[in-house]
Amino acid sequence: MSRAGLAGLLVTHLPDLRYLTGFTGSSAALAVTSRAARLFTDGRYLAQAAEEVQSARVEIVSASLSASAVQWLAAQPGVEFAGFDPARTTVAELARWRAALPSRLRRAFLTVLPSPLVETLRLVKDEDELALMTEAAAVGCKLFDHILGFIRPGVAEIEVAAELEHRARLLSAEGMSFETIVASGMRSALPHGRATTAPLPRRGFLTMDFGVILKGYCSDMTRTVYLGSPKASERDAYAAVLEAQEAGVAAVGSGISCGEVDEAARSVLRRAGLAEAFSHSTGHGVGLEIHEPPRIGAGQTTRLQTGMVITIEPGIYLAGHYGIRIEDMVAVTQTGGQVLTLAPKALIEL
Amino acid sequence: MSRAGLAGLLVTHLPDLRYLTGFTGSSAALAVTSRAARLFTDGRYLAQAAEEVQSARVEIVSASLSASAVQWLAAQPGVEFAGFDPARTTVAELARWRAALPSRLRRAFLTVLPSPLVETLRLVKDEDELALMTEAAAVGCKLFDHILGFIRPGVAEIEVAAELEHRARLLSAEGMSFETIVASGMRSALPHGRATTAPLPRRGFLTMDFGVILKGYCSDMTRTVYLGSPKASERDAYAAVLEAQEAGVAAVGSGISCGEVDEAARSVLRRAGLAEAFSHSTGHGVGLEIHEPPRIGAGQTTRLQTGMVITIEPGIYLAGHYGIRIEDMVAVTQTGGQVLTLAPKALIEL
Repeated sequence: MSRAGLAGLLVTHLPDLRYLTGFTGSSAALAVTSRAARLFTDGRYLAQAAEEVQSARVEIVSASLSASAVQWLAAQPGVEFAGFDPARTTVAELARWRAALPSRLRRAFLTVLPSPLVETLRLVKDEDELALMTEAAAVGCKLFDHILGFIRPGVAEIEVAAELEHRARLLSAEGMSFETIVASGMRSALPHGRATTAPLPRRGFLTMDFGVILKGYCSDMTRTVYLGSPKASERDAYAAVLEAQEAGVAAVGSGISCGEVDEAARSVLRRAGLAEAFSHSTGHGVGLEIHEPPRIGAGQTTRLQTGMVITIEPGIYLAGHYGIRIEDMVAVTQTGGQVLTLAPKALIEL
Repeated sequence: MSRAGLAGLLVTHLPDLRYLTGFTGSSAALAVTSRAARLFTDGRYLAQAAEEVQSARVEIVSASLSASAVQWLAAQPGVEFAGFDPARTTVAELARWRAALPSRLRRAFLTVLPSPLVETLRLVKDEDELALMTEAAAVGCKLFDHILGFIRPGVAEIEVAAELEHRARLLSAEGMSFETIVASGMRSALPHGRATTAPLPRRGFLTMDFGVILKGYCSDMTRTVYLGSPKASERDAYAAVLEAQEAGVAAVGSGISCGEVDEAARSVLRRAGLAEAFSHSTGHGVGLEIHEPPRIGAGQTTRLQTGMVITIEPGIYLAGHYGIRIEDMVAVTQTGGQVLTLAPKALIEL
């Protein structure tokens, strides 16, 4: 804040707020000055906030939490303006906050942060965070290992998802980090195919993309397996995606641009004549949220830093035929990238 | 739109967009004029959008989806300005949209909707929606019935949540509508206690608050049961909450204000000396989202209309002791309220 020339900061995005204070409830606003921090929440969280929050004083309010935070900031000595994150503030909220201020402060007290302050802090994970994310990734791998024994023709996609999610809970996950994708046969050509009641085919690809939330941190991984015995062309397609994925992982390193990592994966698929079939970017950051910066996409100039955790997940989608995607979580290190999702990637035939 | 004097409308909130077009993907923007509708999505959703969307023409873009929608609106003949929902638009998005417009349109083309157009349409559920919500509520009741056979001292809260969620999947739920709450013993005094590894006690209350998503629509219900045999004071407290809940349900009806419904439940707890222990509002609307308007809270003047679906969920929270909450989903009818969650509410001792 001092480097950004800010005397006051308003934080309303819950993952940011959790990052700063440890509060895990679903309703709160945080006000920070150079001298004090105050977390506003409602009566439901009285006990929980007292238990979780050490770094800020907790105030229970029945009025609007964020407007209360704005009013508190405006009443602090020496705070002439306060920053807010425009990417996490709606037009309606900003209007309400302004209306809650004394009229002389309405125009200029609240200022757009030039860069997302807390999100930027969250980009690079510290040792404790990396330990949690390694653990979350390991739970993902255990789930994959478990589900291999469950998959057989005729089982519904939704039963595969249910089994994964049930096992995740028993392994202490707070929940899944996004809606589990289980897409088999022709449905594997849907990059985001949600699990349906469709039975697994006797022969064909099966893509599973899933993640758990463990102590707030998300894991994310994808594996594509084959039921039955693949044709030569299907084997070749899988080999191309795997080569692209490994090239992406190999390109990761501190100081490398996100565009270079994307290009490392993409160029493999381009050479295999599959450029058109790879219709999304190569990956994204992950942490307290399943999708965080940086985006690992074509032309992205952001440079990776030690401590970032990203996904590398090239895929190909051939409508009416099949799809294949392989995804790992990778922690950026000083010398390269450390894969956190250590489940096997060679084509598994079931 | 014509009543609101609008020639163009931009829709970016996904539940609104799903309501209007049927699209269930996680990334899209919709532009509507009096003559045409166009849905912008990315390459991942090519096949899915073609399958799901009939009411709008689908355009796959690799640029920003919402900025593409804004540019399309600005290019339509006769569209001099377009409305957007300020509660669903961030300050940063609005700035990006303006920057994507020709400079002569930047200041005035995008206008704040005076009321949330699509959200207002969504308030009142039509027959098809009510049928889906009745089905979702019935799945919730089946889950409650199932879990009663699973609950016993020593089982972890998280195992109860896992069993509920696994069974939900097998009953075709797309997922849970929020993080399942399983809070036992003293933890039941946390209104939003997430399931932990704590074992269920030999004696004490157990609150379960959960819901499923079925074909996009959310269910929401809470039941509190007792392990062992309750003390007289615990029985009395349960009876007070149940009486408050039933008074809230009985007050529901077309034309009744939300504040009156809240007061019907709250006054029962006030008379029982439990006003302070009831620290939240009585309920909320539910539909494609788990929390929708109206809010059933003190002083709310919004009047219920036939076809709205709301929750009635008074609770008491005695820190260090226990908590009790009972919640139903209720559809507003011309003559009163129809409870959709028909699971028993008399105190169950396990």
